[in-house]
Order: sequence, then structure tokens, then C-alpha cells
Amino acid sequence: MKRGIDMKNVKILKGDLVYALSKDNVMFIKDGYLVIKEHIIEGAYKDLPSEYVNEEIEDYTGRIIMPGMIDLHVHASQYSFRGMGMDLELLDWLNTYTFKEESKYNSLDYANKAYEIYVEDLVKSTTTRACIFGTIHKEATLRLMEMLDKTGLKTMVGKVNMDRESPDYYIEHSADDSVKETIEFIKETSRFENTKPIITPRFVPSCTDELMEKLSRVREEHNLSVQSHLSENKKEIEWVKELNRKAHSYGEAYDMFGLFGGDYKAIMAHCVYSDDEELRRMKKNNVYVAHCPDSNVNLASGIAPIRKFLKYGVNVGLGSDVAAGYSISMFKAMVDALQVSKLYWRLVDNSVSPLSINEVFYLATLGGGSFFGNVGTFKKGYEADVIVMDDTSIKCPYDLTLEERLERLIYLSNDDNMVAKYVAGCKVYDALGNVDENRSEEKEIILV
Amino acid sequence: MKRGIDMKNVKILKGDLVYALSKDNVMFIKDGYLVIKEHIIEGAYKDLPSEYVNEEIEDYTGRIIMPGMIDLHVHASQYSFRGMGMDLELLDWLNTYTFKEESKYNSLDYANKAYEIYVEDLVKSTTTRACIFGTIHKEATLRLMEMLDKTGLKTMVGKVNMDRESPDYYIEHSADDSVKETIEFIKETSRFENTKPIITPRFVPSCTDELMEKLSRVREEHNLSVQSHLSENKKEIEWVKELNRKAHSYGEAYDMFGLFGGDYKAIMAHCVYSDDEELRRMKKNNVYVAHCPDSNVNLASGIAPIRKFLKYGVNVGLGSDVAAGYSISMFKAMVDALQVSKLYWRLVDNSVSPLSINEVFYLATLGGGSFFGNVGTFKKGYEADVIVMDDTSIKCPYDLTLEERLERLIYLSNDDNMVAKYVAGCKVYDALGNVDENRSEEKEIILV
Repeated sequence: MKRGIDMKNVKILKGDLVYALSKDNVMFIKDGYLVIKEHIIEGAYKDLPSEYVNEEIEDYTGRIIMPGMIDLHVHASQYSFRGMGMDLELLDWLNTYTFKEESKYNSLDYANKAYEIYVEDLVKSTTTRACIFGTIHKEATLRLMEMLDKTGLKTMVGKVNMDRESPDYYIEHSADDSVKETIEFIKETSRFENTKPIITPRFVPSCTDELMEKLSRVREEHNLSVQSHLSENKKEIEWVKELNRKAHSYGEAYDMFGLFGGDYKAIMAHCVYSDDEELRRMKKNNVYVAHCPDSNVNLASGIAPIRKFLKYGVNVGLGSDVAAGYSISMFKAMVDALQVSKLYWRLVDNSVSPLSINEVFYLATLGGGSFFGNVGTFKKGYEADVIVMDDTSIKCPYDLTLEERLERLIYLSNDDNMVAKYVAGCKVYDALGNVDENRSEEKEIILV
Repeated sequence: MKRGIDMKNVKILKGDLVYALSKDNVMFIKDGYLVIKEHIIEGAYKDLPSEYVNEEIEDYTGRIIMPGMIDLHVHASQYSFRGMGMDLELLDWLNTYTFKEESKYNSLDYANKAYEIYVEDLVKSTTTRACIFGTIHKEATLRLMEMLDKTGLKTMVGKVNMDRESPDYYIEHSADDSVKETIEFIKETSRFENTKPIITPRFVPSCTDELMEKLSRVREEHNLSVQSHLSENKKEIEWVKELNRKAHSYGEAYDMFGLFGGDYKAIMAHCVYSDDEELRRMKKNNVYVAHCPDSNVNLASGIAPIRKFLKYGVNVGLGSDVAAGYSISMFKAMVDALQVSKLYWRLVDNSVSPLSINEVFYLATLGGGSFFGNVGTFKKGYEADVIVMDDTSIKCPYDLTLEERLERLIYLSNDDNMVAKYVAGCKVYDALGNVDENRSEEKEIILV
């Protein structure tokens, strides 16, 4: 005990610190110290404050310590066919590959086998938090959440709702059925500590007005967030117009049912073709865009003009969108976001300038992290999501600045460069295989 | 000895064989046998021919055996700053980052340190052959070739020629100086077995007419191939027009000096903006396009319409173009080629359909391989460039076809999935660290 600080719950990490305070302001502290107290960031320092100098230090000297990555949009049930079958556009892709695969999760045995692969790989990835789609199956989605809960990663998971315009083998038989299952699903998730439910209408075409209305009430009663898809593909948008003639935009087709944020949080994946009306609505309702550049390329959807969204002040984070995206790596998502922004500038509109390294780093950390509350940076009061990256395997014949090392890490590292991962102050992955034994008792973190 | 076959020089590899016979025809042989005789493919078989049944087999059962990858365009001297400084367009990028870095190779100490990193990583990559740019420095480029020669990889390496429009610190002082150094360079390379010289005018802006004329004569005297850059960036193309008003196209600005193929081979990197006149000239002269999609995105150059080139019957292979491309992985280059072809279709011209998995696999193997002669497939008479890939770490809850496994490997594997690599029948890399000890004596392969 020094100056009244209980050091029992203090962690001090030493290394090269990198974190974004805003999209225009990334901090670089060479040989710095990150102090974590009760799972919360106390501060990031160039020099260790005197009250900590006699405390034990986790020494990551020479390695880069940064906030954990946030995956705002991923389909765990599609991880099984990642890297395959990306030769079709959205609607054909859904009917040819995706619904068939998702229907298999009707079997809990299959779900066990498939979700185990996703969860194992997620633990080894740089992601600390994710917003995840399951399938329409309550039991399989709960099984996924059981697995996720044990990892210490923080996640929001949705049982998917679909009661129309879907194949016979993969549809819920009525809005009431869908809602009943959803309510049961939500109740059963109360036993989890690290994973929380989120309302997940697949997209407007899959949900009747009745289902949308009832889901909205469920959302309100349980005070949950929403995740769905928006304005991804031109044919999809035309179809939404046909299905809901009252809505002036795709976004309004959620908003008119109260499923588009406002006094609660909502994530909409893609927004490749969101027009000004839709963007204004998103800004007004504080909706989060999950930018999924890899997916948008693989399904030839197009390129979302993220620079515009940032100018509008719309919240943006990154999503892997597996399996339309082929990898769960958020480092790859940063590269993809950079790259497609360059092509948008070159091929679509040269008044929309490309994103910078600092901007995509912000999107992958604080940009998406704020969906989870105070998450995604090393400011005092933020939950301590931390990854430690070793870049020594990426050799260079001359000395690099920390800025250069971040850039190179984004482009060239893979999961094997990760030495350790902490979520809310608790070590959930260690390249040497050490994780905090008393993880689940140790802390008490409430997801938004 | 059986039926007159000397089994001493026969290698038999067992595993799942994948190889392209053309862009439209990829062969998949589950549990097949690849027979190599005197470093040359004897055949790929579903059932092992009876004359070999008593011979020793290298057993790669369950792994995928495919031709080695061909990198048709890479700057070894830029590997040091891979993954950094890709925020500018071509001409600014050259002046801000590239020329400064390349000028460092004036020091042989620096060249040693930097090239060692590239060569080590190249050995561990899936690439078996590459066409490589050094710098303007004769000694440093020879040092690179010494290192490459020892690896057993087959390469063509150019000392770069630049005698105008370049910074004072990185320019050759006259066409005669440049040519004199080039001739000495070529003569000194006669001691190498696996690496050969290639004439390498950097690009039209860097070379006076006098230099181009003289290089052309050197090329003819030594019967060498040519590599350079073509129609990469709009400002570059305008500049070429200003510098050479006689040429009707960028391609003609090489062709009028005899540096654009014909009765010898030439590779032109990029061709993002090649028009019909240029394409006809390339077809007529049998010029190879090195398609470098990652580079074209990173420097915001644009997208080369490869489907069009294939329809024209122009030769196409893939290039990593490090360091405008950030990775030397040719698996990544295949993914990039697929992805940008989708965006070209979506954003530029929807009459130009996207490339397929089989097509990019062809481009990375036989497409580029034919530049080196009979290289890039498992047809009888081809040089036995082989990589063995283990995809068991990429888990899936259901059984996959070999076609699906290839697709997934292209998207999701990295160098760590490579178990072994053979070049011209000789093992040059083994994940367990075993390479043929008598590699350099064992064979006699002549590069084109």
C-alpha cells in the first residue's frame, strides 16, 4: 500500500505503447508504461509514476502494446466455409452457400464442432471484442455463447430472426415463433458473464413487418442493442424497396419499427450505398457502421465511402464479416479499409480522399470499441483491452520509428506475432500458454 | 534398373496434386503420384505406373502438391521498407521513399544486410522463381545474386539502368557509364548457376534515348530478356508522352529501341492503362504482363483489366512488386488479382467479368512460369518446381473437395503451411530443415 493505492489489483505493462485518442490523434510512447487498476486503465506514461516504482512489472520491452481489436460484424456460423464460395453476389451467395451452411446448426453436434473452430481461432486472434451473428437456432447459438463466455473475450451474440423470403429448410414459421425463441434465448443468456445477447433481425428482406414490430418490443423490454445489415448490394436495396414501399430508404425500413438506434445502440453492417438521407438518419440515431471492406470486395458489392461517414460524424468501426470476408483478422480489415479507400478515390470519386494508417487504426480500436462503452484506447477510465505484438520477425536493415513499426505491423503481421492478449485487464491469451487462472472470479465487468 | 529407367535420378511424390494446364483447365488428382526424372516432370498419375511401384516414395499423403509460384516482378532492394510508405502515388512515392532507399545499396555492407533478409524470406515463401530488380549498383546487385544462387531458387536479376530524370544521389552519370557497368555486370554473372542477368531499364522516364539504344545492343549481344514498367500511373504516362513525342504509346517508347520483346522475352509490369494499340503490340511481340494488383491498389494506380488481356491472348503472370506491394506472397497476389477483378467489374466496366480461382492459380504458376521456359505445371517435360502445402491447420467441420481446399489455401494459408519446396527437382526448403546436400552439383538446368 502506497498513498492509499491497493497494489493487489494493479497491473503494470512495460513496452512501446500505441493507441488512438481520436481518428486524427494516435499516441506513440516508446518504452512506456501502461498502468491498469481493477481492470481499468489508470494511465499510459512515458515515465512510471513514483507510486508504482516498487511494483512488479510485466516486461514487454521492445514489443508493441496496443488496444485490442474490435470486430463489429462477424457470422460465427459461416466460419466453417471461410475462404470458399465467394464467386457470387450477395443474394445468390446467400441462397447458394450461406443458408445451406447455417441450416446445419439445427444439429447441436454440428454446432459444437463448427463453433469450437471459430472460438479457438478467435482466442488466438488480435480481437478482444466482437458482435456476432449465430443462426436462427436458439440452442446452437447458446452453445456458441457458452464457448465464448469461457474465453474471457467480450462479445454480443445474436440468435438470427428470419420469418420470410427464406428457403423452407432455413426459416422460422411465424413471427410469433421467432419472437418466442428470441425471448427464451435472451433469458437463458443471463447465466453468462462475458457474452451478452443482441437483437439480430437478419436483414429487412428476411423479416415481416410483424416480426420487426415484435422484435422492437422485445428489444425495449430487455434493453438490448441491435445488429443487422444495411445497403450492402444494389439488388438487395431494390428488393427492400419492393418489400417495404412505405420506407424512403433502407435505413427507414428499420427505423420505422424502432430498430435503428436512438436511445440505444445499433450496428448496421456495410452501408456501401447509404445516401445522404440514410446517413443523416444514422447520425441522428447514433447508429454504428460496421465497415466490412473485404466482404464488400469479395461479393463485388462495392466500396463504402468511409471518409464521407467520418465527415458526417457517423460512428464507424470495422467488421470482418466472415464468411463474405475470408478472415477474422482485424489487422487485415485495417489494410482492406485503407486499400479500398484508395480505389474509391481513384475509381469512384476523387473528392473523397483515402484513409490514413492512423484513421484505420482508430476505426479498429476506439471506433468500434465505443460500441462496448469505454473501450478501445488507453485513456484513464477505459476497460483494459490490450494486445502485445512482437514485430521482431519482420526484419528490417535499419532502425524504425514506432510509427513505422505500427504501419508495418498492420500490413505484415499475423496472429503469430501476438505475444499476449488481455480483455478488461485479464490475460486471456499468452503465446507461452499462460492465462490468468482465476479469470472468471477476478473481475466484474458489465457489457453495455 | 527397370525397363531401362535409371531409378537413381527418379523422385516420386505422393499426395493431392493440383496443377493448371491452361487458364480454363486445372487438374485435381486426389491421392496421386508425381514422378520426377532428372529434375523434369515425368508425369502426374492417379495410379502409380507399375515400373515405379518398388521405388521409394516421398509420402505427402493428405497434403496438397502444386507447382511453385512465379513472381514476375519484385524489387529486392525495396524489401527493406515493405509495408511502409504507401501513402503516395507512383512518382511522388519514388522520389519520397524509393530512390532514397535504393541509393543506400551503394554500400555493400548495407546491401549484405538488406538482401539477406529478402533472400531468407524468399526461400521460406512459396515462390520458386522470380524476376528481380536490384539497384543501379553493380556490386550490390552481384552480391544479391550470389545469395540467390546458393538458395537453389531460379531467378533473373537486373542491375537497374537510370541516366536521367532521377535525383543527383541516385543516377548514373551517362549512358556510357550505365552501359559499361551493365556489360561488366553481365560478364560477372557467368559464374552463377541458378540466377541469370536480365536487362532492366527502370522505366522510360529514367532512360535517355541513347541509353535505350545502347542497352538494346547489349541485350542482343548477350541474348538476354528484358524487364521494365509500363503504363502504371496516369501522370507517369503523361510524362512519358512529353519525354518521347515520337512514340504513339508508352509501349512503343520501348519497342522503337528494340526493348519490347519479339524474338526474345520481355516482361512489362502493371499495364493498368494499356490501350488497344499497346495490347496489340504486346500480343505481337509476345510480351509478358506482370500483373501486380496489390501495388496498383497501394499506390492508387488503378486496376489492370486482366480478363481483357487474356482475351487478347497476351501473356500474363503475377508480380508481388514489393515494396509498392507489401508482401512477397504469391498466394496473396492470387487473392488480390481475384479481388481487384471484382471491383473492376463492379466499378469500371461490367462487361469485363471477374477472374476465377482457377484463372488466378494459372496466372501464378503456368502463366508466369512460361517466361522461364517449360515451367509452372506438372506436364511431362516440365521442370519440376513443386511446393507441398499442409492445410490441416485451416480447420473445417466437414469434408472438403480438393477444389475447395485449393480455394481455401489460396485465401487462408501463409508460408507456415508450406512443408517443402523443390526447384527443378531439387529440394530447396523443408519445414524440418532438410535440403538436398548435393544441390548445386546434382543438376544442370539452364535458364532461358
